Amino acid sequence: MTQVHHVAFAHEAGGTTRKALTESLGLLATHEESGPGFVERMLPIGDSYLQLLEPSGEGPIQKFVDRRGSALHHVALGVDNLENALASLRARKVRLVDAVPRDGGMGTRVAFIHPSAFGGLLVELVEEDTGGSKGRT
Amino acid sequence: MTQVHHVAFAHEAGGTTRKALTESLGLLATHEESGPGFVERMLPIGDSYLQLLEPSGEGPIQKFVDRRGSALHHVALGVDNLENALASLRARKVRLVDAVPRDGGMGTRVAFIHPSAFGGLLVELVEEDTGGSKGRT
Repeated sequence: MTQVHHVAFAHEAGGTTRKALTESLGLLATHEESGPGFVERMLPIGDSYLQLLEPSGEGPIQKFVDRRGSALHHVALGVDNLENALASLRARKVRLVDAVPRDGGMGTRVAFIHPSAFGGLLVELVEEDTGGSKGRT
Repeated sequence: MTQVHHVAFAHEAGGTTRKALTESLGLLATHEESGPGFVERMLPIGDSYLQLLEPSGEGPIQKFVDRRGSALHHVALGVDNLENALASLRARKVRLVDAVPRDGGMGTRVAFIHPSAFGGLLVELVEEDTGGSKGRT
């Protein structure tokens, strides 16, 4: 684990979280992209991000918000080599959501570990796209 | 905001989260201390920490776990000067839990912003103790 890559907060559609973070703390969303049923926005903080997840339709983010309200959703940890990290977890019989890497935001490769593995803590592993710009300096 | 200082996960007393994080991801608690009604454990990840909050009696952590189950609790952002950060927030009429800094773990000074300010996201501001060792390199 190289770093806390991002911390994700899922909020109700049209919520005030992003506006308030910008106005009160000066945090700006420098990247935005759509996923299945949600929009993710990335607000850089040092070498990490606060990620805001807003539902845009039916899907796991809407389900989460329906069940929990606006709440912190997961923590994403950076790894140098995601394939190696997953192989190690598979060898330890750790329950995975994603047994193999899939595409994440900003050109990353990602995989989620099942929250049952860590007593309810949802952990995402992220391998950054080292070949391109991350849109920050 | 200089960095994501830590991400806090509150878990049921006696939970398996810490053991699983160590066995599966190699994360180790390098610091442990008691607060009012809880024990906090800090697991370094790069320049940040995953903080595990375990109830040790009645108090806000037990209440949180009673209401939400084991779940992510707050995100802590590093600031260079907490007094200045709080003065700026007070000037903007941002609702604070702690209007003035108080002592946090590991010699830090901390203040929580009220979650209503950010649509349910609980943010802690942390000024690190620059005068001493942080117990990591």
